[in-house]
Amino acid sequence: MGYISRMDASVGQLQNSMFTGLSAFPLTPLSNDEVDERAFSALVERLSAAGVDSITALGSTGSYAYLSVEERSRVARLAVKCAGETPVFIGVGALRTSQVLTNVANAEAAGAAGVLLAPMTYQALTADDVVALFRTVTERSSLPVIVYDNPITTHFTFTNDLYARIAEMPGIASIKIPGIQADPEMTMSRIQKIRSVIPDHVSIGISGDAMAAEGLNAGCDAWYSVIGGTLPQQALRIVRPALAGSAADARAESARLAPLWALFAEFGGSLRVVAAIAEYLGLAPKNCLPLPIQGLDSIQRLRVAQVIDELQLAH
Amino acid sequence: MGYISRMDASVGQLQNSMFTGLSAFPLTPLSNDEVDERAFSALVERLSAAGVDSITALGSTGSYAYLSVEERSRVARLAVKCAGETPVFIGVGALRTSQVLTNVANAEAAGAAGVLLAPMTYQALTADDVVALFRTVTERSSLPVIVYDNPITTHFTFTNDLYARIAEMPGIASIKIPGIQADPEMTMSRIQKIRSVIPDHVSIGISGDAMAAEGLNAGCDAWYSVIGGTLPQQALRIVRPALAGSAADARAESARLAPLWALFAEFGGSLRVVAAIAEYLGLAPKNCLPLPIQGLDSIQRLRVAQVIDELQLAH
Repeated sequence: MGYISRMDASVGQLQNSMFTGLSAFPLTPLSNDEVDERAFSALVERLSAAGVDSITALGSTGSYAYLSVEERSRVARLAVKCAGETPVFIGVGALRTSQVLTNVANAEAAGAAGVLLAPMTYQALTADDVVALFRTVTERSSLPVIVYDNPITTHFTFTNDLYARIAEMPGIASIKIPGIQADPEMTMSRIQKIRSVIPDHVSIGISGDAMAAEGLNAGCDAWYSVIGGTLPQQALRIVRPALAGSAADARAESARLAPLWALFAEFGGSLRVVAAIAEYLGLAPKNCLPLPIQGLDSIQRLRVAQVIDELQLAH
Repeated sequence: MGYISRMDASVGQLQNSMFTGLSAFPLTPLSNDEVDERAFSALVERLSAAGVDSITALGSTGSYAYLSVEERSRVARLAVKCAGETPVFIGVGALRTSQVLTNVANAEAAGAAGVLLAPMTYQALTADDVVALFRTVTERSSLPVIVYDNPITTHFTFTNDLYARIAEMPGIASIKIPGIQADPEMTMSRIQKIRSVIPDHVSIGISGDAMAAEGLNAGCDAWYSVIGGTLPQQALRIVRPALAGSAADARAESARLAPLWALFAEFGGSLRVVAAIAEYLGLAPKNCLPLPIQGLDSIQRLRVAQVIDELQLAH
């Protein structure tokens, strides 16, 4: 796009430049309840070719919570193999600490450049439980860790104080924060508050695709992106201007995708919609999500196809 | 206790008498991140000897969500072996339908008398997703199924309409409903509403120990009980009078345990408290919960011990 990234231009204090820019979250498509390795490999190759800054495999969009230890290990290896020079981060979250450590070891063996760790819950966790989890993982592994704050899926709520306690651990490279539903000023104030309590070398990445442009404009270093995993060119058209300081361009490109964000809101989140997009574009087999998640019905899929066509998102 | 159960006396239309009375939920104690099979076996033998009506192993109290397929299969076999003549139900919930089916097959092979199925979530599920999950399980297995409604851990909310859609499936034996925080009249009205939309042969079991006496007094057929798994005699002192129609006796015995219910509320639920009780009574090794759940701190444990001693719950 010809934009110079804000990173190169001014944010020299960020040591973990790997944890900035667009991190694309590919689906892990299933076919008859098995990982469709061909479809997954093609998705990862597509992301690398598009020039995303990193690939996070086995994020929430990559259905990590539904896959076995063995499936996750295999997917991690495939991701690293197909990503070429693009750094690969691997989601390692699990309900039990020992399972997390197994996933971390497998990600390390696969050649991952970092891991993404969400405090999954079944029984509610305390802040001290979560601190101990991150301490255990950072002490046992030399891989950089992205703190994954996703209250919608984990039902765990981080406070700024907890961000601070975890971010000071050696090994913490980035925090993936949830989308901020507010105006630009409130977004800016929220990001500044987080920034003020964590070390400079820890990057802040926005998620919640509809809020990404404002998050980046407000000072986030990265976008951990759902659509980036399936429509990388579209995501780059938001992240490149934002990080180069062209806030208006990023905002305009995000506004152009408003019909897509509306579908995310209407259809209960991004996952089912992005799976339907990938299926519509021939990037994933039909019904690629793990049951019991049934995916969108045929009428919803028609609406998705309409938006894809009208916004020319296939290109 | 000398009480004649309400079942025997009047509720003849209940075909699934196995799914009535006290179902006791034992912990699955861990020791150094492995199932402590000796402690678990002793807990189950203790329940059988106490004369509980059924044992549900691998419920939420049994940490099912944290254990591997292999651990769960082994625990199911141990439970059936140690329970003697007492029927054993096995928790089979998992995030992915195919994992649930594996757990069901393993429960069946272990000799379970039924399975307990909660719609675990990471991504939110729709009502149709959950209907399809229960349809798949009831079609693939001949084991009776208990529908496990636990919104606190699953973050899925059942409606009465959904109870009706699922309860009509052949194979559904019981519904485990969450505790009802209200006065006796509201509890009665809630139970009657559920009863009016499900077949007569499907039993209704209350959970939320503090609300159990009122639930049973209001017409629930069973109590799916956390304390029943560790303090079976105490639980029987509530369930026997309630099911024999002596509502006041059940209410008084539950009121006597108010300091215990207060600890459940104060310490974030029943699991950590019951684990501390089992550890205090020497029924489980220290720190028997799966990490990252750290269990109660030492000051909280002192409070638990005090309540146990004051209420003479060790006897």
